[in-house]
Amino acid sequence: MSLPESSSRVADIRPFRVMQVLARARELEAAGRHLVHMEIGEPDFATAPPVVAAGREALQQGLTHYSPAPGLPQLRQAIADYYRDQRGVSVAPSRIVVTTGASGALQLALGLILDPGQTLLVTDPGYPCYRNFALFLGARAHTLPVTAVAGWQPDVHSVASAMTDDTRALLLASPANPTGAVIPAAELERLASCLAARQSWLVVDEIYHGLSYTGALPSALNAGDNVIVVDSFSKYFGMTGWRIGWLVLPESLVEAADRVQQNLSICAPVPAQHAALAALGSDAMAIHEQRREAFCARRDVLLPGLRELGFSIPVTPAGAFYLYADCAALSDNSEVLARDLLEEAGVAITPGADFGDHRAGQHVRFAYTTGLEAIDDGLERMRRFLRAGGG
Amino acid sequence: MSLPESSSRVADIRPFRVMQVLARARELEAAGRHLVHMEIGEPDFATAPPVVAAGREALQQGLTHYSPAPGLPQLRQAIADYYRDQRGVSVAPSRIVVTTGASGALQLALGLILDPGQTLLVTDPGYPCYRNFALFLGARAHTLPVTAVAGWQPDVHSVASAMTDDTRALLLASPANPTGAVIPAAELERLASCLAARQSWLVVDEIYHGLSYTGALPSALNAGDNVIVVDSFSKYFGMTGWRIGWLVLPESLVEAADRVQQNLSICAPVPAQHAALAALGSDAMAIHEQRREAFCARRDVLLPGLRELGFSIPVTPAGAFYLYADCAALSDNSEVLARDLLEEAGVAITPGADFGDHRAGQHVRFAYTTGLEAIDDGLERMRRFLRAGGG
Repeated sequence: MSLPESSSRVADIRPFRVMQVLARARELEAAGRHLVHMEIGEPDFATAPPVVAAGREALQQGLTHYSPAPGLPQLRQAIADYYRDQRGVSVAPSRIVVTTGASGALQLALGLILDPGQTLLVTDPGYPCYRNFALFLGARAHTLPVTAVAGWQPDVHSVASAMTDDTRALLLASPANPTGAVIPAAELERLASCLAARQSWLVVDEIYHGLSYTGALPSALNAGDNVIVVDSFSKYFGMTGWRIGWLVLPESLVEAADRVQQNLSICAPVPAQHAALAALGSDAMAIHEQRREAFCARRDVLLPGLRELGFSIPVTPAGAFYLYADCAALSDNSEVLARDLLEEAGVAITPGADFGDHRAGQHVRFAYTTGLEAIDDGLERMRRFLRAGGG
Repeated sequence: MSLPESSSRVADIRPFRVMQVLARARELEAAGRHLVHMEIGEPDFATAPPVVAAGREALQQGLTHYSPAPGLPQLRQAIADYYRDQRGVSVAPSRIVVTTGASGALQLALGLILDPGQTLLVTDPGYPCYRNFALFLGARAHTLPVTAVAGWQPDVHSVASAMTDDTRALLLASPANPTGAVIPAAELERLASCLAARQSWLVVDEIYHGLSYTGALPSALNAGDNVIVVDSFSKYFGMTGWRIGWLVLPESLVEAADRVQQNLSICAPVPAQHAALAALGSDAMAIHEQRREAFCARRDVLLPGLRELGFSIPVTPAGAFYLYADCAALSDNSEVLARDLLEEAGVAITPGADFGDHRAGQHVRFAYTTGLEAIDDGLERMRRFLRAGGG
């Protein structure tokens, strides 16, 4: 007898190409090759020592039972204080839900606002999971192409013309993955207002918000009442594997979020919640700031290096740890270029196809989640490869 | 301007009644009252020391980056070994996905098999979240009433007659919450076979599987090829707040599960994965077995005590840490009884309404997640309350 089938929702969920890159990279390394890794969207730094110490202390104290569904009260308060002190915006702790990474926050946020058959607007290029969160919920994603010259962010005209009666929300990231692009505060306000007029939500993923190289960024929470913010301790706070993030909701969604979180997650990982509290403390914040400066220094080496090699990056990205580079002058197929760079130059990067369809074949993403020495090495390897006629 | 609305899916998701009990219990305790807690579905034991030590060691070693989406290879292998050694069933590690608690496992499993509009069969009474996982996915839940005389588990005739063309799966727990009932292996096989004939899945939640008081239980994995098993380190292994569980899938769903897990969760919490590895080790297992014996001893005090008070529990539950008691001889409204026991006797329990509608008004759940002394105290408090004319 044949087995029952899987749901049709999962057939639409695409795997990340970068997983193939990673798998092949592991094979090459197992065979003795030395590689430069610029494919990974994860800080190379270990979690800061004060955060690790707080996690260890929480375990020692036996703080391993469930927390309230929206998170430990002291952590929600500390996140509210962080908004007040670092981002200049007043947020009641009741509006904050602690989640299992930004993944948990995105799933909760989209579940709260999207019904089956409804549409979420996302950017192309953009974080590939956005679309898949919508598909998992039985909803649809409609992509808005964004371009380097327009700062890799959507504008109010393209959003307005893409909206239909089924549109419930626009989801964008600032700083964005894969482009590092920041959206100006004024544009966020225009978007929020345009969406509000159509009874729709603006969901802003601020997971890279702390990693800004042009001074403090305004929070999207200032842009309107219909704004939902997703954030995480993964990137700036260096806590990827702990799986801890948060969501800021308008009061009107708080009660529903509590119910959904109770049912779907029970709560976010509790030792990680105690560690996250320490991540917001001054000792850890000093370390996170040093690391932000290190990322900036890497950007300032990698960006001119790539331009010199013939990659086009018209606008210097203001945040995150990615460069989304146009490789049209070097190759007519970014997947082939990424494969060749891996196989022949030993440099692992991510082809544009992971982030959408719009001009994906002429773009690749470099993550500067490796040290300056490795970045210099990677640039030199690519220089030799391209001089030898590669690309 | 009014805010956009929430999705209609969340309007259907009910809060747990036990949360109101817990909130009121906290108020009473803040006012100085001493309470006996028998409402909480969480072991009172702290995580076993060897597991805590492994978690602390993982943090110390900086093992806080992402893991592969389906989990650390050594943990998947250890879970496979556990099935072989403890449950007498051979499972390839590739079929095991490490998840963020049983919550993450249920969500992944149901997302893999249910499309919007399709139906999941669940028992009434049953774990209230099951229904809500289906609703969150845009699917439906159809409840099968189960009774004490039939061992609180569904039989193949009721399942067969409840199935429609939209039915994609039956989800049951064994041992079950709130009843502690175990389903016989032969009945599982009949159910799996009946469902397979209709191209449907049997999903079995084995989260209480280690907490058996009648010897080792057979795994549902032996019941058929269309069986999906959900499990967790929360209950028997005492790791609730860590949020770590797993899913066992047929090979046909493995690739899709990897894609969905990548996109929706990235991975389960990594320090918890390292700790879970230690939870399967012999030092920790010896502690878990002692605790299982302690739960059994509690059951053997609470059960006759409740019967003596006039609660009816026709069948001695074989597992978990719950007694689902018929209180019809004491009250005509289990919610009122639960409220009065809390307010007047200082005993916190959960009304049947949390677990469904079927005869919910004449049932309450007692969790023996508190020590023998507290159980004796709780029984004495209830005795005084009922003698004084309460109930």
